[in-house]
Amino acid sequence: MSSTKPAMRDALVAAAFQLFLERGYEQTTVDDIVTLAGVGRRSFFRYFPSKEDVVFPDHERCLTDMTAFLAASDPGCDPLERVCEAVRLVLRMYTENPTFSVQRYRLTKQVPGLRAYELSVVWRYERAFAEYLRGRLKGLHDGTLRADVIAAAVAAAHNNALRSWLRSDGHGDAEQAVEHALGYVQAAFGAPGAPSADEPPEDVVVIVSRRGAPLWRVVQEIESTLERD
Amino acid sequence: MSSTKPAMRDALVAAAFQLFLERGYEQTTVDDIVTLAGVGRRSFFRYFPSKEDVVFPDHERCLTDMTAFLAASDPGCDPLERVCEAVRLVLRMYTENPTFSVQRYRLTKQVPGLRAYELSVVWRYERAFAEYLRGRLKGLHDGTLRADVIAAAVAAAHNNALRSWLRSDGHGDAEQAVEHALGYVQAAFGAPGAPSADEPPEDVVVIVSRRGAPLWRVVQEIESTLERD
Repeated sequence: MSSTKPAMRDALVAAAFQLFLERGYEQTTVDDIVTLAGVGRRSFFRYFPSKEDVVFPDHERCLTDMTAFLAASDPGCDPLERVCEAVRLVLRMYTENPTFSVQRYRLTKQVPGLRAYELSVVWRYERAFAEYLRGRLKGLHDGTLRADVIAAAVAAAHNNALRSWLRSDGHGDAEQAVEHALGYVQAAFGAPGAPSADEPPEDVVVIVSRRGAPLWRVVQEIESTLERD
Repeated sequence: MSSTKPAMRDALVAAAFQLFLERGYEQTTVDDIVTLAGVGRRSFFRYFPSKEDVVFPDHERCLTDMTAFLAASDPGCDPLERVCEAVRLVLRMYTENPTFSVQRYRLTKQVPGLRAYELSVVWRYERAFAEYLRGRLKGLHDGTLRADVIAAAVAAAHNNALRSWLRSDGHGDAEQAVEHALGYVQAAFGAPGAPSADEPPEDVVVIVSRRGAPLWRVVQEIESTLERD
């Protein structure tokens, strides 16, 4: 939210969505929105560069907050866990207002221009994750590759859980669904940084029989062994 | 490439890129392109819906080919390996003509509209991978989640290696870089489908000591053990 006149900004968003739902997005002009909100055109463009931007009023703030959150990270923290915490900030923007989030989801599905806009927003979140991970994995073997792949996996996991929740009209527990999805990514990639001092390498002893066994079988076996513990 | 008059289509692409490089993308009109190519405006729009489309002349064909390739998959094949093969088809489109691919990469970096276009193309590839994987993992635990996350990871790995190669002006071995990147994804996710009949579970025997050891340490240990074999 802008720090000046948030009430007018909120009124513009409310008027815009009322008209988008009544008439459709394409059939609504900025003039219609400002007339309903009782303000002038210049007030609209003070808050939103275009009609598309009023559909995603909180993403710029959320991107800024999330980037600042990552920049303020403890250099010793688990980088993947930190990115997962950043994802929870993004999710909160959706779950704070389920009705609005579901309305926007339906609108975005119907209007190709809005889908393209959303795609560019998702890409900016993913790049923010990747830039942070690149910094943390700098100098490590395949650092940028691992950063990019893990960032994409985290974003995809979040989006999979979020979209299920939006498709269910905001019913169910979005937080729990996203935690579960992030857990899958964390199991796949583990802690991508260097091992911390309290995890000495000699903690692990492994014997593998028959060299032809595929790696995924071995990992599956270990996962179930650890779960039994 | 279109099956009819590919020479005219190629001539339009060549003329467009000559002008984009000489004058810049924004400063070049469709009229400029058709004048240089010696054809009429209608010929241009027969092949390309807009000026943006002439920058990515092979993506529609490539997307079609790749989707058909995935649709024709053996139902018993390793789904992740199959998606990696599909990625190799996409890569070949870039490596077939390194000069053109590098020129386009530079152009795309400079023009925001083209970056948005490219983003939507990348998204369509990723969705094609995800749709195929969703079909293959249908009914399995977390099937759609795993499909979406693995598809995003594969696309990110490919793009990481491809962009390094494009940034190096097409020098170096793009195929090898992409294989390496895909290997990282395959190690993280293994074979996401059911184990095949010729890989009986008793092929693997694993002993893990100290239950507090993190999974990534165990996997790292096994990977190096298998590599030593």
